[in-house]
Formats: sequence, C-alpha cells, structure tokens
Amino acid sequence: MALNAKKITHVCLDADDTLWQNEPYFRRTEREFYALLKHKLTEREAEDKLFQTEMANLDTFGYGVKSFTLSMIQTALDVLPADESAPAIRKILDLGKNLLSEPVVLLPGVKETLEKLAPNYHLAVITKGDLLAQERKLEESGLLPLFGRVEIVSKKDTSVYRSIFRAWNVNPENILMVGNSLKSDVLPATEAGAQGVWIPCEDNWKHEETEEPENPPYTKINALTDLLTVLL
Amino acid sequence: MALNAKKITHVCLDADDTLWQNEPYFRRTEREFYALLKHKLTEREAEDKLFQTEMANLDTFGYGVKSFTLSMIQTALDVLPADESAPAIRKILDLGKNLLSEPVVLLPGVKETLEKLAPNYHLAVITKGDLLAQERKLEESGLLPLFGRVEIVSKKDTSVYRSIFRAWNVNPENILMVGNSLKSDVLPATEAGAQGVWIPCEDNWKHEETEEPENPPYTKINALTDLLTVLL
Repeated sequence: MALNAKKITHVCLDADDTLWQNEPYFRRTEREFYALLKHKLTEREAEDKLFQTEMANLDTFGYGVKSFTLSMIQTALDVLPADESAPAIRKILDLGKNLLSEPVVLLPGVKETLEKLAPNYHLAVITKGDLLAQERKLEESGLLPLFGRVEIVSKKDTSVYRSIFRAWNVNPENILMVGNSLKSDVLPATEAGAQGVWIPCEDNWKHEETEEPENPPYTKINALTDLLTVLL
Repeated sequence: MALNAKKITHVCLDADDTLWQNEPYFRRTEREFYALLKHKLTEREAEDKLFQTEMANLDTFGYGVKSFTLSMIQTALDVLPADESAPAIRKILDLGKNLLSEPVVLLPGVKETLEKLAPNYHLAVITKGDLLAQERKLEESGLLPLFGRVEIVSKKDTSVYRSIFRAWNVNPENILMVGNSLKSDVLPATEAGAQGVWIPCEDNWKHEETEEPENPPYTKINALTDLLTVLL
C-alpha cells in the first residue's frame, strides 16, 4: 500500500535491527550455546529445545537478554548430565553479560536519515525488551537528542500501540511506524490505525516470523535510507 | 518537614512495598536460597556473597527478579562444587519463577485511601524493576484505573525524577512523592524539587538502606492510610 505521506507528522521507529544491529548478536550467541550441547544434541535439536523453553517462559519472563539467558540455563540443565552442567552454565552467564554489553553499531545511513527527517517530523522510538538494556543502547547510539518520545514496552501488540497513540494524543493516521518485524512493528501498528513501513532484515528470530499478507497494509522498503524517498 | 499540602496537585506513589507487599517475598526467597548453600556457608556468609554478586552485576543486569535470579545462579556456581550445582540451580530457577508469579497483596487500607484521594488529586505510580513484572502487578492490583500516569523506570535517581516531572510539565512543588525507600523514592524526588512522604517498612533490602538526614526534607508517616490526615 502506498503511504499517504502528506498526513504523516510523527515517524516512530523500532530500535533493535531497525536502528542498530541486534539479531546477529543473538544468532552468534545461540551458536555458541549450541556448541556447549553438541555432544548431546545436533544444532537443529538444540535450537528446537531452546525455542520451546523460551516460548514456555515467555509469559513469565518476557522479552530481552536476561530472559534469554535464563532460558539457555534451563535448557542446559535439561540436556546435560548433572555433573557436566556447571561449566556450561558459567559460560552461559558470560554469554548473557556479553550480549548486554555489545557495542551499538548503527545500521548504514541511519543517523543521516534521521537527521534529515528531524526538521520535518516528530521522531519517536517504540521498542520492547529489557528496560535498562534498551536505555543503554539508546544512550550509546547518540540518537537520543533526535527523539521527542521514547517508549520502552514489554510487548508490541495492537492494544499497546493504541494506548501509546492515545497517550500522545495524536491521530493514528498521522503516525508512521517503521520497523523490521512485521509481527511486532508493522502489522499491529497498522491495525491500530497508523501507517506502516516494513524493512525486512535477515536473521530474524523465529518467534518474530509471520506471513506476508496478500494485500499488505504497509509499504516495504529495503533500507531505512529509503524512507527519505518515500517521505520527503 | 511539614507538607505544604495546599500546593499539592499530583500524588505519586512507589509500588513495591508502598502499595503491595514485595520485600517479604524476596527475604523468604533469599532464605530458601541460603538453605541450598548451608553445608558450605553460614546464612550470614551466603547473604554477603549474594549481595556482593548482586552489586557487581547491578550495572549490567539492573533491578528486578530476573537479575536477582541470575545473581543467585552465579553465587551457587561460585560456592558449590561443580557436581552439586545442577539441582541447586534448577531450584533457583523455580524460586525466580515463583517470585514472578507471587499474588499481589495490597497493604492495609491502600485501595480505600487511593479512592478517597482520587477525586482531589492526579494519582500516578513511579516504580522501578522488570517492566513485565511491574505491569503484571499493576494489572493484578486492580488499582490501574485510579492512576493517570504510570512510569516504570530502570532506576530512581534525581535526574530520573527531574525528567519525569519535566515530561509531565508539572511544577515539582505541586508534586508529592510517597514511598517506602528513603534512598529511591523520597530523597531523590525531594532533591528534584518535589515534596516527600516516607513510609518506613520493615524488611528493606540492604541496598535500599540509607541514613535518615538530620533535617529531613520529607514527612514521615506510619502507613499509607495516614496520607489522608496529612493531605485532606
């Protein structure tokens, strides 16, 4: 669907994998985790087992690195003999701490694109995950001064977008939501009445995958820099 | 210091141990954790060891149950022989999950007090910890409809209170911050220009303890119900 660019006053951006690299760090950490189990499980079996554990824990733990770390620990306990698990769990704690202190690497052209949009639009971030971890990354990104609003939420569904837009007191049709996850960024925001731009990324977490609808209520672009073509 | 009650238009409340019971659940969990180490450490030694680990992890993990659980796991790995740690860590994961699903038990008179204040003041919550866990408790508490604003933050220091008050566009002297922690609720909020009420609670976490100043810039009451006497 083509954007109605004239109506847009607010451009909202997802953070992880929209502004900076994130999933590749998770994928690398997962591979290091699977290696700890490799004498017991194939990589594919380990992946399935971890994913099942994460899904079973999602309602209790929520999203983010600490939840992921706790689910890796639980999986290791389930898979490894009791006398082998201590060194593996110590390694998992280190993997979690490393993930929490990964450097923030902006995706190509992000800063320049946002700086060009800033004079013409209210820019905001809507992101989910660990509160402290998201704050740290926003701070380190150097982008904070560009954003009028930052919303860190525990999940991104239609009702969450609705209540954010209501709290801002902005008509949803004046809002554009931009992100790499159809499931969390684009579809629920458009369902809440906003316009949507999807920037597919490789390396998506399986949980974030969803089918592309036949008549997509959003515009698909290849990179954040393309926003300038679509908007200005 | 006596309140200048006439100026107050906004009453902000901390959540854990101000609105509902929380620290007693943590203290009970800690005792169950110390029991797992009791053939290696006295309760006092285990307490010191856990506290040191939590403090070393605070900048990376932040506050909340998941951080606490990860620090218990790390402490168990440090204290127990490798071949003994698996059952202990499994138990710690359960302790963490139990803490995350503790029922919300309001402190005596909280609901009635807030309902009496609601017609005369803007009520808000400012709380720190796991985003999802705090949202779950607020939802379960049944108090959400009373609060115009809910702020879940990763830490509570003077600059955080300043930026909240600025975002609300309310003069800090019109704001009363009420809580059980001098260190996180009352002192930094008064430093940011708000008025303060302190409701001491037993069972405080050692990290939250701080000395009472000689000329306290806040009013001390025994229970939330006393707010009515002080305010109305």
